[in-house]
Amino acid sequence: MKQIDSLIATYRDGLLHDTLPFWIKHCVDREFGGFMTSLDRDAAVIDTDKGVWQQCRFTWLLGKLYNNVEPCEEWLELAQHGARFIEQHCFDPSDGRMWFHVTREGKPIRKRRYAFSESFAAIAFGELAKASGESHFAERAKQTFERFVDHNLNPPADESKFTETRATRSIGFPMIAIATAQELRESIGLEAANVWIDRFIDDIQRYHIHSDIGCVMETVDASGARLDHFDGRLLNPGHAIEAAWFIMREGKWRGDAELIRTGCQMLDWMWQRGWDRLHGGILYFVDVDGKPVQEYWHDMKFWWPQCETMIATLMAYTTTQDAKYLQWHRLIHDWAFSHFPDPQHGEWFGYLHRDGSVSSELKGGLWKGPFHLPRMQWMCWKLLAEYEDHSVSAS
Amino acid sequence: MKQIDSLIATYRDGLLHDTLPFWIKHCVDREFGGFMTSLDRDAAVIDTDKGVWQQCRFTWLLGKLYNNVEPCEEWLELAQHGARFIEQHCFDPSDGRMWFHVTREGKPIRKRRYAFSESFAAIAFGELAKASGESHFAERAKQTFERFVDHNLNPPADESKFTETRATRSIGFPMIAIATAQELRESIGLEAANVWIDRFIDDIQRYHIHSDIGCVMETVDASGARLDHFDGRLLNPGHAIEAAWFIMREGKWRGDAELIRTGCQMLDWMWQRGWDRLHGGILYFVDVDGKPVQEYWHDMKFWWPQCETMIATLMAYTTTQDAKYLQWHRLIHDWAFSHFPDPQHGEWFGYLHRDGSVSSELKGGLWKGPFHLPRMQWMCWKLLAEYEDHSVSAS
Repeated sequence: MKQIDSLIATYRDGLLHDTLPFWIKHCVDREFGGFMTSLDRDAAVIDTDKGVWQQCRFTWLLGKLYNNVEPCEEWLELAQHGARFIEQHCFDPSDGRMWFHVTREGKPIRKRRYAFSESFAAIAFGELAKASGESHFAERAKQTFERFVDHNLNPPADESKFTETRATRSIGFPMIAIATAQELRESIGLEAANVWIDRFIDDIQRYHIHSDIGCVMETVDASGARLDHFDGRLLNPGHAIEAAWFIMREGKWRGDAELIRTGCQMLDWMWQRGWDRLHGGILYFVDVDGKPVQEYWHDMKFWWPQCETMIATLMAYTTTQDAKYLQWHRLIHDWAFSHFPDPQHGEWFGYLHRDGSVSSELKGGLWKGPFHLPRMQWMCWKLLAEYEDHSVSAS
Repeated sequence: MKQIDSLIATYRDGLLHDTLPFWIKHCVDREFGGFMTSLDRDAAVIDTDKGVWQQCRFTWLLGKLYNNVEPCEEWLELAQHGARFIEQHCFDPSDGRMWFHVTREGKPIRKRRYAFSESFAAIAFGELAKASGESHFAERAKQTFERFVDHNLNPPADESKFTETRATRSIGFPMIAIATAQELRESIGLEAANVWIDRFIDDIQRYHIHSDIGCVMETVDASGARLDHFDGRLLNPGHAIEAAWFIMREGKWRGDAELIRTGCQMLDWMWQRGWDRLHGGILYFVDVDGKPVQEYWHDMKFWWPQCETMIATLMAYTTTQDAKYLQWHRLIHDWAFSHFPDPQHGEWFGYLHRDGSVSSELKGGLWKGPFHLPRMQWMCWKLLAEYEDHSVSAS
């Protein structure tokens, strides 16, 4: 790999001198606490409401960088600022579940039937426990993770969006459970992490990995069978590729070549299905049989599938040295960097048309915030730095 | 208006020789009843599930044409075929509410928190009551309309998607209530129709028509005030233009010039906000202040906003003879007819990119079915025929 130092600089400096300052400068709410992440192109706040996912994810990012890059007091102070808002305003005291969307002051607007807020709160508390040394946060992290797992394994029957006529499984829960347990193993040494990770990797292998057609299915029936309906045929390649690197990362951590092969196989299949041969970039949704998709934004290019694919291809290359992955990483890196960054105001656009033209100049909202882009920059920087160290020490 | 006969032929023949045969030939389920409206470009069924909205809407269309075009036995038989499936499979016996999505056999998959299925069932039963003379259907129509209104005026507190922190009003309920009452006044002579229509026009005027900025607001707070958040700023010009012609139609029916002016005013404002000066066609969503919109498909061109705008502009022209509306009708007619029809397999595409290129070749799904396009063809045909008759008799 040539020009590795220049590539490291792209990711590292993008993170530390563009993405992080963009959010630190513009989203911190000193009046009511927490973060206002709904930002216009020029970083003006265009909605004062607060998405709970983004409160938790930014708190996680700040703690992660404090623990892994440098012990910068500003990052720790901001992570504590985020955690205070989460603890004070993002839990529903009536049932202990978390909200999804609150007002600037922290009054609840909406709770969702699923519990991903809890998974993001768990990793935020975990990094803060490590950064601050306060055992209170470690306990919170563990509790919130257990709530997340329990809510998904034992969903309240009366809260389901669907009847029991056609029970389905989605890959979202097991993959996020794996990533959450991995984070908590690293931050607070969660004892049960490996047991949960084994279980959820097994679920993905058993239900979602369909070797007969070479595909990672997003949604299947309760037994893992494919459903010949819109939802059952719908693939989300960027999501499956994100799951692929969670599993590859587990293989690297354990030194388990079989898990690395599984992750690479998932990436191989979903790159073939998701890469847009016409315009480049990873498509949002595709149908497993190539039929029309019912979701309106199926052919758009969102920032996060590109970020996840950049991580997965680089992890696959630095782990296996298979030149195919280096080529794919270059393709996705070049496509993303030539379409998403905003040269005028910094950070990335989030929502492009299929051809790469900008559909919305929004920098943040309930869905986009300081997470997929800075996590990608941090992961790619770290993967390259490790690879460089390893190459030097091996030579 | 030149070439009026040719324009009548476009709408009439499109309805009777393209749209209607497309659906009659391909969506009727003789094995399990009802209609399978999830059709691929070439009309192949790509999902056997049944959307309740589409069961009701096609039943309504068939009854409407039987009652207004010609007493074609096939249309009546198919309307009865639809109504049987609706009565047998689309109501939840546990609470009397309707489902939103059922399997081919009629087993429930999903109920939504709102109750639009009920409004479409009401107009279907109404037309069938008129067509068949069976009083049973008239009773069903009345009951279902009352359920629809009651569910929306007295929503179950535990079913809300949002907390009470920020109560909102959407234009969807009052506008559909007006159109439903208008249909039932015509089909079954619903006695309470005018009282309900008065009330809901008043609601729209009081809460959604914001003269100070020249805009029909889609969502406002409980008092009608604008909300400076993503949802509060979000305009749906095609939806507001549909509401405009419901109110214009009421003005015509009553001979009330003030209501006609209100409808035209709504159309004027929302044409200016929704017409895409770059590519033509009506945009799906725009922000009232021109800020970025959070909904991903905001700049796409869906078939239905174009259909509703064709009806509204033609109704405004034939009612007021203001040449501006004739010009707008030509613009929207020409744009729609040069982008949506599928010359190879018939009917219209539903989902185009902003520039008019096809995003999805889907002919039908849970959302698109035999409704907006054939209703537009029927309404435009009728408006032109009435206008021609009037011009002839006046000369």
